[in-house]
Amino acid sequence: GCAKVDLHRERRVGYPEVIYCAGKTSGQVTAILKAMLEREVNILATRASRELYQEIREICPDARYSPLAGAVTIRRKEVKAPPGYIALVTAGTSDLPVAEEAAVTAELFGNRVERIVDVGVAGVHRLFFNLETIRGARVVIVVAGMEGALPSLVGGLVDKPVIAVPTSVGYGASFHGLSALLAMLNSCASGVSVVNIDNGYGAGYIASMINNL
Amino acid sequence: GCAKVDLHRERRVGYPEVIYCAGKTSGQVTAILKAMLEREVNILATRASRELYQEIREICPDARYSPLAGAVTIRRKEVKAPPGYIALVTAGTSDLPVAEEAAVTAELFGNRVERIVDVGVAGVHRLFFNLETIRGARVVIVVAGMEGALPSLVGGLVDKPVIAVPTSVGYGASFHGLSALLAMLNSCASGVSVVNIDNGYGAGYIASMINNL
Amino acid sequence: GCAKVDLHRERRVGYPEVIYCAGKTSGQVTAILKAMLEREVNILATRASRELYQEIREICPDARYSPLAGAVTIRRKEVKAPPGYIALVTAGTSDLPVAEEAAVTAELFGNRVERIVDVGVAGVHRLFFNLETIRGARVVIVVAGMEGALPSLVGGLVDKPVIAVPTSVGYGASFHGLSALLAMLNSCASGVSVVNIDNGYGAGYIASMINNL
Amino acid sequence: GCAKVDLHRERRVGYPEVIYCAGKTSGQVTAILKAMLEREVNILATRASRELYQEIREICPDARYSPLAGAVTIRRKEVKAPPGYIALVTAGTSDLPVAEEAAVTAELFGNRVERIVDVGVAGVHRLFFNLETIRGARVVIVVAGMEGALPSLVGGLVDKPVIAVPTSVGYGASFHGLSALLAMLNSCASGVSVVNIDNGYGAGYIASMINNL
Amino acid sequence: GCAKVDLHRERRVGYPEVIYCAGKTSGQVTAILKAMLEREVNILATRASRELYQEIREICPDARYSPLAGAVTIRRKEVKAPPGYIALVTAGTSDLPVAEEAAVTAELFGNRVERIVDVGVAGVHRLFFNLETIRGARVVIVVAGMEGALPSLVGGLVDKPVIAVPTSVGYGASFHGLSALLAMLNSCASGVSVVNIDNGYGAGYIASMINNL
Amino acid sequence: GCAKVDLHRERRVGYPEVIYCAGKTSGQVTAILKAMLEREVNILATRASRELYQEIREICPDARYSPLAGAVTIRRKEVKAPPGYIALVTAGTSDLPVAEEAAVTAELFGNRVERIVDVGVAGVHRLFFNLETIRGARVVIVVAGMEGALPSLVGGLVDKPVIAVPTSVGYGASFHGLSALLAMLNSCASGVSVVNIDNGYGAGYIASMINNL
Amino acid sequence: GCAKVDLHRERRVGYPEVIYCAGKTSGQVTAILKAMLEREVNILATRASRELYQEIREICPDARYSPLAGAVTIRRKEVKAPPGYIALVTAGTSDLPVAEEAAVTAELFGNRVERIVDVGVAGVHRLFFNLETIRGARVVIVVAGMEGALPSLVGGLVDKPVIAVPTSVGYGASFHGLSALLAMLNSCASGVSVVNIDNGYGAGYIASMINNL
Amino acid sequence: GCAKVDLHRERRVGYPEVIYCAGKTSGQVTAILKAMLEREVNILATRASRELYQEIREICPDARYSPLAGAVTIRRKEVKAPPGYIALVTAGTSDLPVAEEAAVTAELFGNRVERIVDVGVAGVHRLFFNLETIRGARVVIVVAGMEGALPSLVGGLVDKPVIAVPTSVGYGASFHGLSALLAMLNSCASGVSVVNIDNGYGAGYIASMINNL
Ligand SMILES: Nc1ncnc2c1ncn2[C@@H]1O[C@H](COP(=O)(O)O)[C@@H](O)[C@H]1O
Ligand SMILES: Nc1ncnc2c1ncn2[C@@H]1O[C@H](COP(=O)(O)O)[C@@H](O)[C@H]1O
Ligand SMILES: Nc1ncnc2c1ncn2[C@@H]1O[C@H](COP(=O)(O)O)[C@@H](O)[C@H]1O
Ligand SMILES: Nc1ncnc2c1ncn2[C@@H]1O[C@H](COP(=O)(O)O)[C@@H](O)[C@H]1O
Ligand SMILES: [Mg+2]
Ligand SMILES: [Mg+2]
Ligand SMILES: [Mg+2]
Ligand SMILES: [Mg+2]
Ligand SMILES: [Mg+2]
Ligand SMILES: [Mg+2]
Ligand SMILES: [Mg+2]
Ligand SMILES: [Mg+2]
Repeated sequence: GCAKVDLHRERRVGYPEVIYCAGKTSGQVTAILKAMLEREVNILATRASRELYQEIREICPDARYSPLAGAVTIRRKEVKAPPGYIALVTAGTSDLPVAEEAAVTAELFGNRVERIVDVGVAGVHRLFFNLETIRGARVVIVVAGMEGALPSLVGGLVDKPVIAVPTSVGYGASFHGLSALLAMLNSCASGVSVVNIDNGYGAGYIASMINNL
Repeated sequence: GCAKVDLHRERRVGYPEVIYCAGKTSGQVTAILKAMLEREVNILATRASRELYQEIREICPDARYSPLAGAVTIRRKEVKAPPGYIALVTAGTSDLPVAEEAAVTAELFGNRVERIVDVGVAGVHRLFFNLETIRGARVVIVVAGMEGALPSLVGGLVDKPVIAVPTSVGYGASFHGLSALLAMLNSCASGVSVVNIDNGYGAGYIASMINNL
Repeated sequence: GCAKVDLHRERRVGYPEVIYCAGKTSGQVTAILKAMLEREVNILATRASRELYQEIREICPDARYSPLAGAVTIRRKEVKAPPGYIALVTAGTSDLPVAEEAAVTAELFGNRVERIVDVGVAGVHRLFFNLETIRGARVVIVVAGMEGALPSLVGGLVDKPVIAVPTSVGYGASFHGLSALLAMLNSCASGVSVVNIDNGYGAGYIASMINNL
Repeated sequence: GCAKVDLHRERRVGYPEVIYCAGKTSGQVTAILKAMLEREVNILATRASRELYQEIREICPDARYSPLAGAVTIRRKEVKAPPGYIALVTAGTSDLPVAEEAAVTAELFGNRVERIVDVGVAGVHRLFFNLETIRGARVVIVVAGMEGALPSLVGGLVDKPVIAVPTSVGYGASFHGLSALLAMLNSCASGVSVVNIDNGYGAGYIASMINNL
Repeated sequence: GCAKVDLHRERRVGYPEVIYCAGKTSGQVTAILKAMLEREVNILATRASRELYQEIREICPDARYSPLAGAVTIRRKEVKAPPGYIALVTAGTSDLPVAEEAAVTAELFGNRVERIVDVGVAGVHRLFFNLETIRGARVVIVVAGMEGALPSLVGGLVDKPVIAVPTSVGYGASFHGLSALLAMLNSCASGVSVVNIDNGYGAGYIASMINNL
Repeated sequence: GCAKVDLHRERRVGYPEVIYCAGKTSGQVTAILKAMLEREVNILATRASRELYQEIREICPDARYSPLAGAVTIRRKEVKAPPGYIALVTAGTSDLPVAEEAAVTAELFGNRVERIVDVGVAGVHRLFFNLETIRGARVVIVVAGMEGALPSLVGGLVDKPVIAVPTSVGYGASFHGLSALLAMLNSCASGVSVVNIDNGYGAGYIASMINNL
Repeated sequence: GCAKVDLHRERRVGYPEVIYCAGKTSGQVTAILKAMLEREVNILATRASRELYQEIREICPDARYSPLAGAVTIRRKEVKAPPGYIALVTAGTSDLPVAEEAAVTAELFGNRVERIVDVGVAGVHRLFFNLETIRGARVVIVVAGMEGALPSLVGGLVDKPVIAVPTSVGYGASFHGLSALLAMLNSCASGVSVVNIDNGYGAGYIASMINNL
Repeated sequence: GCAKVDLHRERRVGYPEVIYCAGKTSGQVTAILKAMLEREVNILATRASRELYQEIREICPDARYSPLAGAVTIRRKEVKAPPGYIALVTAGTSDLPVAEEAAVTAELFGNRVERIVDVGVAGVHRLFFNLETIRGARVVIVVAGMEGALPSLVGGLVDKPVIAVPTSVGYGASFHGLSALLAMLNSCASGVSVVNIDNGYGAGYIASMINNL
């Protein structure tokens, strides 16, 4: 076989394995899927095209697709919702696909997600109008491309951990997200930790872990 | 004056401002210190040489110094300890200064820190001997240089958030910590978020935030 | 002519020249092939599309194609198999094409290859289940993308040379395999040497050399 | 001679040549200085150590030294002050040397400079307290290291051109100012242009040009 | 909604928000457009394909398109022209799209733009033939790719601020504009500040700000 | 117009302007061509597709096309051939397009070019078989990708200037020619100077200059 | 304690742990040493200054020091010598320290090492004079800085595995060994694998493993 | 011995081996020197400190030292001067050490060198005043740091080959000469080839080769 699905993972780290579809053939994805469907786990497949989703629906008609996130979800099990919520703050409209990958992930894992979109630092008053929602969360995800300044700003305003997600949005000296990544790693606000460029999934996962503490 | 101490920060984000001493003259550091001493706050000064510590002790005799971390602490206020603890995992002996900066920070903020040192992936059984302590924590800090593989390994074994700290330990193609940083950002384990190279302080800070949720 | 085939190479280094098809026109590839077919040598053409394979089959009907590896092989001569075998360890499903290029190369050169797939560090128990096979080999190839941690882990567990192959699997700060490459070069395990990103062929070749010592 | 002083420059671009002392021997600096002293021009020597300043004072007793900026100035001619002023905004205490190089340059060229220090994004209210002064300027210089977010924030709040100066303040993934530089080049606020890392002199020069329009 | 249009921006910084179309769906662009059309503002959409322009014209028939710049403009309001003009200097024919984006931006904001094209340093006499026009401007934009030398040359010849725009024109070691960007940041001429690679829009915006002082 | 053809260039530097077609519309190319056809100069257009060549032939039926080099030549004037010749040494078959661009350029400028192909360092005897031809030249061009070692080897064997051309041939850590470029710049043989990655044209031009001294 | 010496390593991978002294205090080094001296193992400490060696000799008088390699060795146990030998080929005089680290390592592990020094590609005949010795080895280490071409050359001439060690010898665009590293990773000769820049220790270790197969 | 002096090099490439002193002990340098002194060759030792020069004078009293170039020369043999001369053009005063290394090299090899200093592009008229001297040369060396624009300008004005030498002069985004190096490799003037950053020696060597054709 092409894969050894880590079926024991949920017991070990609390969450089942997730299928990262980029660079896999649809044959490989469906083989992994079938192995997982034999267990009672909720399934998430990220970076999935609509074509792949169609093939998945053949073997699993209750699969759902978020075109913005490019994510397929299959819900097979109730997950207990923690009392708090995750604030998901996005700098610009072009960052929405990455943010939505985070949202889909966190929601599948049972979390409530409050979305605050398009509040980038060029018009900072938009952030302040939403400060109460952000401050009420147990953990905050901030998604931004280009100069990646938004997590520093948020980090200086809240007393909760901030998960910063750099995106590849931008051009020229953004170098496909490097600029935002470096900015976030060098944040002068102290509560900010960072995941990979465009890694909405990872941010949603960590935020869920923290929200469930 | 050379600085506008953010005295209002503790109210906003839960912790007072911290003095980053690198690139500041001792005159600037003591000026900032005096402003802070007027308030009832615990003080932390990072990247401080022993010489700077001596000068600080002149104006504040109860200042403490950790030579391994290069950190000065001044305790002025009781901090309520949360019930859980932070596991602090270090890959090699050379990574200890960064790890200790994290420990000093987290302890000043009232946390219990369990240190597990020298358990790098080249001798992975050393990690497994300590797995129970790591799994018992509410949040795990993992400090590693060179290939930075340890956070991925730990991330695949625990159901708690992992804060990864790349260090500049290494030579040649480690490029002063770049190699460890990139490895941690690309972790195939899902619960890992990353702070700046050698940023023990930041990791201790975030872990404290999470441990206090 | 467009090429000076190094027909004397097998005598010098033990193996005939191999055709790297990327960036060559099909006319150039078949011209080189014809020159080689005049001699009694086994032929390997890497990075070959199925279209190129079709053209090759016109002039050489016994050519074989591995679609996963993208490699064409033509077997014209018996090769004596050495008694030992090569262990080929792969981190994830997406790394399979590179691993298979290594396998095809080593097998054409007469080696037995034991494949252990999908045992990346996020679920490290999968590696331990296969340790005996890995330890029994004379040389180990480890293929991994993203954070490239697997060779360090394997290197700390076996007493045989490890050939590490970074892959371009990943996104964002993986920078097309740079992250895995740097990790492998900085391995804290000592028996690890590294080949170019995605260079399955080179790894298979070196492993064959070592297996034949 | 070691240099061809561009004595005609003031007529061409409005300002005399400036002596960049780094990498020059003190013999070279004083040779250039003597050539310039024969003309009625105001003289600026940047990146000058106190030792170099002592040597300069031997041949020119009215030379002044700013130890923070590392700059020597010799005032030989009245410069007509423009009616407006330059706002000089600094993110942190460690950025002050670069900011002061900008201030010394602009002031020697006859400008009024309003300094607003230590208003980095981690405590953004400090910026808002100073907004009126910033908005009243004809041009704004913003100096910041680490994540370099401040120019974006300022750029979104004022209707005047912002000259952003990245500094090499930081460590690890700040890569000696690269992180701040990239952030500023990718600013999502539109009125921001950028000079070289630590180039306070260049920012002061351009701001003076704009303030004199 | 996918966006929070910063309708208050014109009051704050003097110019309305501009729509950056790259990475946005046409649905997102037209949603933003409709929100803006409710106000009396001039609209600029950059990085727009002809297809997108067709869709825009459906909801706004008086939209204009510059195919060279890839920019859509909608003029809804008279803008008072300042007395001076902007000189727009281009190094080579291949830099024209970026230059034209600057021109369209500056002209929509009411400025007169004098274009001087194809005067790169390999044939420097072409620049000197146009020096009078350049010197007569209030601010100069210089657009160049490859070695990005032209802004330094212009900066040494005029007494007005120079906005340098590196372009991604070139190949090999131009690294998609990095070579020109670094050259411009290191200009030995003093009045040069720099915007992002290919950021014609930003240059036109800043030049307009300066021309309106 | 979109271009200011530097018609005076031949008088100044000895060669007419050359048309670099990448990134130009066919309209721009033919406009430049028409301006040049009014003069008695030989014309070279590099990086031209076969489609562009067809359009050029409409306005200039005697234009020739080299599909390997991707170059169009129009010969309008006899050029006196210098007595010596240029040796053009190529490492591998995949480097031929770049080498041929150099050959076409040098030949249009009247030089005799001796081609020695496919003599890369992996089979160094192939180089030695051709040493006499290389040593007889007045100047040597060496074209190589991947590790770019060939110019060092040649440079240590001849007493004539070596022009090294790195190519983007390779994958993974060749980083599109960076690896070959750095190797050539660091050559331990002393007579080697380097042009841009894939810049066959530049190498042919310089070699022609030297061959005509 | 500061370290968990991996005393079980010799059983697992065939060699005891080695002390990498860079970045460790002398207190840490001697603590590790004492733990190891309790066992019957041969000890190697790399990157050791003469001062550190003096301190080591206090607690272990039979320690030996190689000033060229910067390595301390303590021999406590006979090691059976394998019948073959390792060829150690060095490009230039400045690469000797790295080469000697490899030699000291391999010799402590019981191998015979044949040194061939100063045979860089600029004078390639020096290599050919030594070809017989190189071809007689079971494995070849090649150490080179600058353009790192030597391993490719050797790799094309021998039928044994080549371990390439890039060194930081060079300046400018050698970027502290990056140039040699990239060249070696992109070697067009097939039997070449690579270790970290300046990692003589790693090369000696792997060569020993292979020589003992 | 530590070195295999390439005594046969002069016969092969026309010039004797040159001693690069950086990274060599004085013992190694004098050993190489003694081997060379046994032959009738002119000797050049580059990157030599004054201390090293003193030691060299002990064994060779007629050795000369250029402190600006850091070069030792020993003249043992008449060299026939070619009729032409080399023009050596320097951008700024800080580039003089690199330029002087080129001059010392070329002069030891028998060439006449015409120096034109401090004619950087910020004051381009200084270049035009010296154009006749530059145009009269058989080959031109251009030395520049920072933005490295001067070779492009010179290349567009002369009909002789230009050897461009980037220097590490600059700070911030000059990245130790990278900025100048990239600019020169991307020169839009055609007759420019490039040597390593700060490699005055290499430029002098190549210019001598060309001047002697
Ligand atoms: N070791 C450290 N690493 C990273 N950030 C730090 C460190 N120590 C202090 N800081 C941060 O730096 C801020 C002070 O920056 P500044 O205004 O330049 O003095 C503090 O408020 C902390 O948030
Ligand atoms: N601190 C500085 N940063 C950047 N450029 C400077 C600085 N100080 C002086 N300069 C420029 O450097 C030029 C002198 O260069 P040089 O000919 O090498 O002496 C001056 O004319 C200024 O344009
Ligand atoms: N010169 C060297 N280069 C690379 N790795 C080394 C070197 N010397 C020792 N090592 C490795 O570093 C490990 C010790 O790392 P640490 O736990 O930080 O002391 C040893 O077990 C060796 O595998
Ligand atoms: N300043 C210099 N820059 C670059 N290469 C040099 C320099 N000086 C000498 N060399 C070269 O370095 C070679 C000596 O290298 P090595 O064998 O390491 O001593 C000489 O033969 C020269 O080709
Ligand atoms: Mg928006
Ligand atoms: Mg250890
Ligand atoms: Mg898997
Ligand atoms: Mg501060
Ligand atoms: Mg042109
Ligand atoms: Mg070939
Ligand atoms: Mg040598
Ligand atoms: Mg000067």
